[in-house]
Amino acid sequence: MSSVLEQQVDRHPLELKTGVDVDATLTAHVEHELRVYLGRQRAAAASIDEAFASAVGALSDFVVSGGKRIRPTFAWWGWRAAGGDPDDLDTVVPVLRAVSALELIQACALVQDDLMDDSDMRRGLPTVHVAFGAKHREQGWSGSAERFGLSAALLLGDLALVWADDMVRTSGLGLEALARTNEAWHGMRTEVLAGQYLDVLAQARAATDLHSAEQVSRYKTAAYTVDRPLHFGAALAGADQELVAALRCYGADVGIAFQLRDDLLGVFGDPAVTGKPAGDDLREGKRTPLVAYGLDLAHRAGETGSAELIESALGVPELDGGLLERVRATLIRLGAVRAVEERINRLTTSGLAALDSVTIDSVAVTRLRELALEVTHRSY
Amino acid sequence: MSSVLEQQVDRHPLELKTGVDVDATLTAHVEHELRVYLGRQRAAAASIDEAFASAVGALSDFVVSGGKRIRPTFAWWGWRAAGGDPDDLDTVVPVLRAVSALELIQACALVQDDLMDDSDMRRGLPTVHVAFGAKHREQGWSGSAERFGLSAALLLGDLALVWADDMVRTSGLGLEALARTNEAWHGMRTEVLAGQYLDVLAQARAATDLHSAEQVSRYKTAAYTVDRPLHFGAALAGADQELVAALRCYGADVGIAFQLRDDLLGVFGDPAVTGKPAGDDLREGKRTPLVAYGLDLAHRAGETGSAELIESALGVPELDGGLLERVRATLIRLGAVRAVEERINRLTTSGLAALDSVTIDSVAVTRLRELALEVTHRSY
Repeated sequence: MSSVLEQQVDRHPLELKTGVDVDATLTAHVEHELRVYLGRQRAAAASIDEAFASAVGALSDFVVSGGKRIRPTFAWWGWRAAGGDPDDLDTVVPVLRAVSALELIQACALVQDDLMDDSDMRRGLPTVHVAFGAKHREQGWSGSAERFGLSAALLLGDLALVWADDMVRTSGLGLEALARTNEAWHGMRTEVLAGQYLDVLAQARAATDLHSAEQVSRYKTAAYTVDRPLHFGAALAGADQELVAALRCYGADVGIAFQLRDDLLGVFGDPAVTGKPAGDDLREGKRTPLVAYGLDLAHRAGETGSAELIESALGVPELDGGLLERVRATLIRLGAVRAVEERINRLTTSGLAALDSVTIDSVAVTRLRELALEVTHRSY
Repeated sequence: MSSVLEQQVDRHPLELKTGVDVDATLTAHVEHELRVYLGRQRAAAASIDEAFASAVGALSDFVVSGGKRIRPTFAWWGWRAAGGDPDDLDTVVPVLRAVSALELIQACALVQDDLMDDSDMRRGLPTVHVAFGAKHREQGWSGSAERFGLSAALLLGDLALVWADDMVRTSGLGLEALARTNEAWHGMRTEVLAGQYLDVLAQARAATDLHSAEQVSRYKTAAYTVDRPLHFGAALAGADQELVAALRCYGADVGIAFQLRDDLLGVFGDPAVTGKPAGDDLREGKRTPLVAYGLDLAHRAGETGSAELIESALGVPELDGGLLERVRATLIRLGAVRAVEERINRLTTSGLAALDSVTIDSVAVTRLRELALEVTHRSY
C-alpha cells in the first residue's frame, strides 16, 4: 500500500485541475491528502522498523476509515469566507493539506477517548486499544494484553497529534500564513484537552448542573469542532479581526448546538443510522445538558421519582431496553427534549445572525448557513 | 503563584544582563523560562475553568520539580556549536525559550511512561496518574479512581506535548529560524514515540536479542536525547549540512552510550544516588543491551543455569535482594558488564571523533567533549 501512496506524493489528485469545483468535492480531497501524508509517514516508519511501520499502518487505516470530516470542512469554509480563492490551485493544495491535518488531531482525540472510556467499537470496528490487546493475546505475548493495548493506543494517539502539526508545517504554506494560524492552532488543541479533562472530572464528580455540562460542550466540541477550525482557516487567508470575531461567534453557537444535537442522538438516535448502540450516552454515564435539563425540570416539578429514574440509568453498562424506553419517555414528558430543541434553535439563529454583521464571500456565507442547519439538524 | 509568574512574563531573568555567562548558568535560565511559560498557561487555563487551572498547576509542578535538563543542554550547545552568540541577548532569550520547550516533550514522555509502566513514584513524589487516582479516592468521587488517574495523566501529557510546540512558536524566534527546525522537531517527536512503541513491543515479545535492545536505545534515547536536540539547536543557528551531520554522529553514539550507562545504573546503581529502587530495570522486565549481552554470553559459554537465573529476575515486581545480588554477580562474571563498559568507551570515542571532522566553536567543542564524558560516566 505505501508504495502506491508514495508515487502520489506531491502530485495533485487527478481531479484537481483548473475548473474543478473543490468546494463541492472537498471531502474527497481531504481524504486524498490524508492518504498521501500517511503513506509517506508509513514509508519513513519502515526505515526505523517494520514493526513500527505496521503500527503506523493501523493508525493510517483508522484515519482513512471514515468520519464526517467536519473540522476540515469548517476550516476550508473559514478560508473561503475570508476570501480564499478555490481556483488558485497553487494555494488550494497547501490549504487542503493544512485543513486535512485537523483530522489527525481528531484521530488522536478518538483513539485516546476510546481508551479513557474503554469503548470496544468505533465505526463498526474494534477500537485501537482493543485491537492491539487482541493481537497481544493472539500472539501469546508476555505481560498484560490490556496494558499493551493501552500503550499502543496512547502512543499512536500521540503520534497523530505530532503529525497533525507536521502536516501543517510541511503543507507548502508560506511562513507568514503559518504564523497567522498560531493562535487558533494553540487554542484548538488546548481547548479540546481542557474540555476532555472537564468532561472526565464532571463524570467523576457526578455533576448534573447545566453549567458544567455546557462548559464541556463549549470546549470539547464547539471550540474544537467549529469555532477554532473556522478561526484557523480564516487566519490562513489573512482575515481581519472583525471577520474572525464574527466567524468565531457563529462557531461557538453552532458548535454548542451541534453538541446538543449529538446529545439528543446519543439517547434517541437510531443505532442503524448513528452507528452507535441505542442510549449509548446514558450507558457511558455522560452528564449532558439534556440530562441536566431533565433532572432540573424533575426537581422543579417535585418529581423526585423521575429524577431518580434518570439517575438510575446513568453509567449502567448493561442498560436494559425497558429502562431506556422509560427514561426516554420521561425526558420527553418533563420537557427536557423540547428545552434542548429550543436551545438548538436559539443558538443556530444567533450563530447565523453573527454572519450578518460582516462582509463575507457570498458562496461561503451560503454554505456556512447550510452547514449550520446540517450539523444541528442531522439524524446521524 | 500564577500572578507572581505573570509579572515576570517577557522580562529577562534578573541575571540575564550583558556580561553574564549564560553557558555556565544554563539550567537556571531553562527553569526560569519554563516557570514563566507555564505560569502564563496556568493563568489562561483559569479563564477556561478553575478546575482545569488546578490540573495545569499539577503539570507545572511536575515540570519544575527537577530533572537534569539534558535535552535543553544539548540543544543549547548545538546552537553554540553552530556559532550562536551567547552575548547577543536579543537572540539568547528566544533561543533559551525554544530549547526549554524540550523539557515539555520530556514531561509528556515521563508522565505517559509512568502511566504505561504503572510506576508509583517519580523524583520522590507520586506519579501523576497515581496522584490523580488518590485525589479521586479522597474526594469519594464516582467511578473508577484508576480510570480517572489514567485519563488525567494522558490528557496532561498531551497538553505538555502541545505546549512544547507552542513554546517554540511563541519564543520570539524569526520565522526562517523556526522553519529550519522543522526536520529536527518532527524527527525528535516521531522517533521518541517509535522508540517507546518498540520498547513496549520488545517487552511483550520478551525479545532478548541485542538488535531489538539497541533499536530501542537508538530511538527512545539517543535520537531523542542527544542527536535531535543538537540538530534542533544547530538548525536554529543556521548550521550547514556538514556540521549538522557531525553533531548528529556525535549525538547518536554518545546517546546510545548514555543509555548503556543508564542500563548499568538500572541494575547496579546506588538507590541513594539514582533516586530509583535497586535493580529497578530488572523489576520492570526491561530487556536492555546489558541483559542481552548477559544472556548471549551465558548461552555461548553453555551456562544454561546462568541464563535462566537472569530470565528469572526479569519482570518480578517483588525482586528479592538475594536474587538481585546473584544476578549482579552473574552479569559481572559472564563479562556482560565489561562488554557494556567497553561498548560505552568505543561509542564515546567514536562520538568524540565525529567532532574532529568539522570546524566548531572552540568553547562549544570543549563543552561537548565534557558533556560526552559526563553523561556516559555518571553515577546518577
